[in-house]
Amino acid sequence: MKFELTKEFLQEIIDKIDRQEFELIKTELSELHNVDIAELIEELDEEYGKILFELFEDETSAEILVELDEESREAVLEDLSSQEIAEDLIENLDSDDAADIIADLPSEKKVEVLSHIEDIEHASDIVDLLSYPENTAGGLMAKELIKVNDEWAVLRCVREMRKQAEEVDKVYTIYVVDDDDVLLGTLSLKKLLLSPEKTFIKNIYNEKVFSVKANSDDEEVANIMEKYDLIVLPVVDDLNRLIGRITIDDVVDVMKEEAMEDYNKASGISEQVDASDNIVTLTRARLPWLLIGLMGGIMGAEVIGIFDIENNIELAFFTPLIAAMGGNVGVQSAAIIVQGLASNNLGMDSLAQRLIKELGVALLNGIICSGLIMIITSLIGYPNSISFTVSISLMAVIIFAALFGTFIPLVLDKYKIDPALATGPFITTINDVLGLFIYFMIGKLFLNL
Amino acid sequence: MKFELTKEFLQEIIDKIDRQEFELIKTELSELHNVDIAELIEELDEEYGKILFELFEDETSAEILVELDEESREAVLEDLSSQEIAEDLIENLDSDDAADIIADLPSEKKVEVLSHIEDIEHASDIVDLLSYPENTAGGLMAKELIKVNDEWAVLRCVREMRKQAEEVDKVYTIYVVDDDDVLLGTLSLKKLLLSPEKTFIKNIYNEKVFSVKANSDDEEVANIMEKYDLIVLPVVDDLNRLIGRITIDDVVDVMKEEAMEDYNKASGISEQVDASDNIVTLTRARLPWLLIGLMGGIMGAEVIGIFDIENNIELAFFTPLIAAMGGNVGVQSAAIIVQGLASNNLGMDSLAQRLIKELGVALLNGIICSGLIMIITSLIGYPNSISFTVSISLMAVIIFAALFGTFIPLVLDKYKIDPALATGPFITTINDVLGLFIYFMIGKLFLNL
Repeated sequence: MKFELTKEFLQEIIDKIDRQEFELIKTELSELHNVDIAELIEELDEEYGKILFELFEDETSAEILVELDEESREAVLEDLSSQEIAEDLIENLDSDDAADIIADLPSEKKVEVLSHIEDIEHASDIVDLLSYPENTAGGLMAKELIKVNDEWAVLRCVREMRKQAEEVDKVYTIYVVDDDDVLLGTLSLKKLLLSPEKTFIKNIYNEKVFSVKANSDDEEVANIMEKYDLIVLPVVDDLNRLIGRITIDDVVDVMKEEAMEDYNKASGISEQVDASDNIVTLTRARLPWLLIGLMGGIMGAEVIGIFDIENNIELAFFTPLIAAMGGNVGVQSAAIIVQGLASNNLGMDSLAQRLIKELGVALLNGIICSGLIMIITSLIGYPNSISFTVSISLMAVIIFAALFGTFIPLVLDKYKIDPALATGPFITTINDVLGLFIYFMIGKLFLNL
Repeated sequence: MKFELTKEFLQEIIDKIDRQEFELIKTELSELHNVDIAELIEELDEEYGKILFELFEDETSAEILVELDEESREAVLEDLSSQEIAEDLIENLDSDDAADIIADLPSEKKVEVLSHIEDIEHASDIVDLLSYPENTAGGLMAKELIKVNDEWAVLRCVREMRKQAEEVDKVYTIYVVDDDDVLLGTLSLKKLLLSPEKTFIKNIYNEKVFSVKANSDDEEVANIMEKYDLIVLPVVDDLNRLIGRITIDDVVDVMKEEAMEDYNKASGISEQVDASDNIVTLTRARLPWLLIGLMGGIMGAEVIGIFDIENNIELAFFTPLIAAMGGNVGVQSAAIIVQGLASNNLGMDSLAQRLIKELGVALLNGIICSGLIMIITSLIGYPNSISFTVSISLMAVIIFAALFGTFIPLVLDKYKIDPALATGPFITTINDVLGLFIYFMIGKLFLNL
């Protein structure tokens, strides 16, 4: 079932649409997963994409819609009436996907579509889900789930599950609740299969169950699911009543985004962009760091200007080296802390312990780098005074940058500010400028600048 | 069931171990998830950790063992005989976890432990899994699964599943195979629950199923599972016979590692380390980039030395700015490409199209930054010739770095070299040095250096 979209295949589909060979296309695409059909539609020009989308019906087209990116989704929905959207698409989707689609509609159309959903329970589930912010457990959850009462016996349980299964596409876990819908635990399919028909559920269910409140942050959801290797996580209200469940596939996206955000910050990209965004969006995401870097560069120039470097002009040759090394060490130190905070494996060391350890790493790196620069610059033939000054400064800058890079993210985290900012522009730039200052102060000391 | 390990709790446990209040500890910890107990053991001193681990029995201790980090795992296994490891721990684990534990044992002990496993089928499953490299589908899969024959009726199917369920802890999917064990498709629990007892499986199963070969790369497994939102993925041999299944929780780690690797490369960390590693390991992971940066810095100094900057000393003030901006732009450009390649969303643009787009972004960023530097340096009072030179050079360096940063990862990827290297030391340093060269060449042109 694996599929890779090629230019040839794309052209073939375009030709077939031009020749109106729609049945042929349908047969050919019936082998593909909805994700791949969505990818195909995204790559086609809008008009062709719409034609292709309309070849599919109800359940299939609903599932393709879910996979489409925002732009293509808007395009295909544009031509459909509220009634068509409600009856052909929304009614065929799980509540979470349905809510995501409706949330993106213009507010007028939103109400219209909702009013056209015939299944009242489905409509009310969707309205309910729409009330949760996107980045909360409520925003991630679906309402479809299988639940059984702890007072039931296995036989009744199977019968009730059969009824519920008609509404639920995929059964992940069987939840056990009491008469008030309060979540008590889970029932494994294994236990259900292996227990005699008259056994009561309350005697065979598992009481150890993780759950989250609907207003929990999505990153907390991701952390719990990852830490405890959960495939599905139930969501409860403040009275601990079961109101939905979150599956890992939706959370994988949250995890990826989190990792991407940190990566972006470390690379100097200020908002989530990808290579397919347009030039203005890409520029906007990149300009802020460049501007901060620019200011830092100007400040750096001013710092150098303070000192009288004309008599020791060679010192100026090494300013890029000092600035780059300070920046590199700072980013390394901050990145290790940021990763440690993100994956919760910093253990229980105190700030002081962290700094002492980082000092050790910096000393080791510093001695090696400073020694090398001393030897190499001497061999090249720089005056000893220059070699010595550059070498001592490099040591000082490496130590400073390592401590600064460790300290800042830990302090940011303590004050609930995203520590990944420390790998970003602001701190790196400060690091650069202070590094230059240290360099020339040491130069002044040894060379009388 | 949520739990956060605190220093107080840790001390409390240590005190109780000292007072030998083992029953009390057991009761207190019985509420915790195995993951949390493992974390607790890791934080304790080795001797205390061992005592704590030995409080638990069979199934629980086996599951705690799986969650322990390498160091603590070695410590607790050290004191156990091969027979104890086999009978108390390995027999209670799924084949994939069991294989992971045995793989880490010294080779002598490996054979001994395997020979003590009483369940011959379990032992042969483990031996089978041990034959696959760690970073392949075979290395990720477990042998425990539920499979039914397409010729069976629903009634027989449920009966057989009951038998199989005794061996299988968690039922994710029901696989449908033919008499030769060839994978045909999957059967949803929903269909099974809703179909009359005499229906044949072949009439109700779903033929659309993704599978991977046992020797597939783990990153390919992660990509398929992520793209198609799969919770579990069957593994087949070259004859398409079902031999195992991979669950998403094992693959989440692969995804995380992939993201981390790219992040590390962008931050100048050459191997997977975390904040809890020792000083030497941390230094070793960081030194390579620093050394490359150092060489780059020396080359940069040599480049500056070529030019006669004494008559335009102010030009030297801006070398850190030019180097930093070139580096920043290059990393941004490369990061966007690396992310695009990693998440397969670069679409089908050609190299030329990418470069033209990047040129657009660079022009926009360049005009803004160059304009600003022109204005600001003039206001500060630098000579017009300096303002002009710095401004023009900055434009040139931004354009060069953007194209270079886009070109290199795409070319690396084409030759099957990890494109994330382009965000790392080697390329960034080349970028810096060439940037300085461009700067002073332009300076020479306008200022007769």
